Amino acid sequence: MARRGFLLVLSSPSGAGKTTIARGLVARDRQLLLSVSVTTRPPRPGETDGLDYHFITRARFEEMVAQGELLEHANVFGHFYGTPKTPIAEALPAGRDVVADLDWQGTQQLARVVADDLVKVFILPPSRAALFERLKARAQDSAATIAKRMAQSAEETSHWPEYDYVIVNRLIATSIAGVLAIVAAERLRRGRQTGLADFVRRLGAD
Amino acid sequence: MARRGFLLVLSSPSGAGKTTIARGLVARDRQLLLSVSVTTRPPRPGETDGLDYHFITRARFEEMVAQGELLEHANVFGHFYGTPKTPIAEALPAGRDVVADLDWQGTQQLARVVADDLVKVFILPPSRAALFERLKARAQDSAATIAKRMAQSAEETSHWPEYDYVIVNRLIATSIAGVLAIVAAERLRRGRQTGLADFVRRLGAD
Repeated sequence: MARRGFLLVLSSPSGAGKTTIARGLVARDRQLLLSVSVTTRPPRPGETDGLDYHFITRARFEEMVAQGELLEHANVFGHFYGTPKTPIAEALPAGRDVVADLDWQGTQQLARVVADDLVKVFILPPSRAALFERLKARAQDSAATIAKRMAQSAEETSHWPEYDYVIVNRLIATSIAGVLAIVAAERLRRGRQTGLADFVRRLGAD
Repeated sequence: MARRGFLLVLSSPSGAGKTTIARGLVARDRQLLLSVSVTTRPPRPGETDGLDYHFITRARFEEMVAQGELLEHANVFGHFYGTPKTPIAEALPAGRDVVADLDWQGTQQLARVVADDLVKVFILPPSRAALFERLKARAQDSAATIAKRMAQSAEETSHWPEYDYVIVNRLIATSIAGVLAIVAAERLRRGRQTGLADFVRRLGAD
């Protein structure tokens, strides 16, 4: 059945698990494409260029903005982040679905350009204590960054009512299974199956 | 998480498999309740009262209509059918989801009374030939009834654009898995999780 792809956005306060869930999704469903953001921030230890982010210079970032090569972009703690347009613009009409891990601001910007092709999932931590523990466990971040992120977390969390689906991330495997069910269901949405009218016409004729 | 239940309606032309799918769903997900319709038609061989239908008299049916005990009702080939209100009215506020197997007219009537709690799934046969074979295989039906149902099938099929999800029933197991994914996804919809605002409030406080 001919089908239009969708862009599934995962948002959550930092450390609630959205990046782990996004990786789990593309590992389990090979039809899903992971959107890799561009950023001007330096790589953290263990991060790979082209996999975790495309690490680019400020000059290249500004060029991408000027050329309309980013679907959304933002300044977070003094570093710039953006979502490249080309991979998504190619995937959706070809019936490929894309997963992106974005904050509420990026999601709002995307909603204006992607509209009906957007599926918005918000991930909540099971408790504030769990969120703090996960941020501490990410040893790459300085204590000052952790404090800033905890403060930011309340603001990010306040945007959950703007999302289509909400998952409380108690067990990572259960959360991944939940998002995979959302992906499977969204593929069955009438509006995404562009071949249905033709199929029903042939049903009457054969 | 406190949650409001939903009513999942399956519609399809006769013989496309909606009844088999509905049975498969409640066998695999014990949280799902099957809505058992009332009917004035006589039982077919092998049908059990209270399981396949509640077989009732015309007088009782008219009483139920008069008392507002049916969410929807219709006359199909001279027999009356209806969906009892009480099991659904009790299940949804308690967070139980209900599956009902209905035609497009019943679905339209339900949409007026259940509104946001309704999830509409349309099942299409893989081909017209397959539909005819399945109708013939149901030996209970007379040749005249089969002919009438084939004619009716085109009309029922024309209502697919009114549904949220559409599944082409090629393999029954795949179709059941598809509807189970829809059920899992709909349970994660923000609007159905009535406990979320309280949960997020506690997240800020603990």
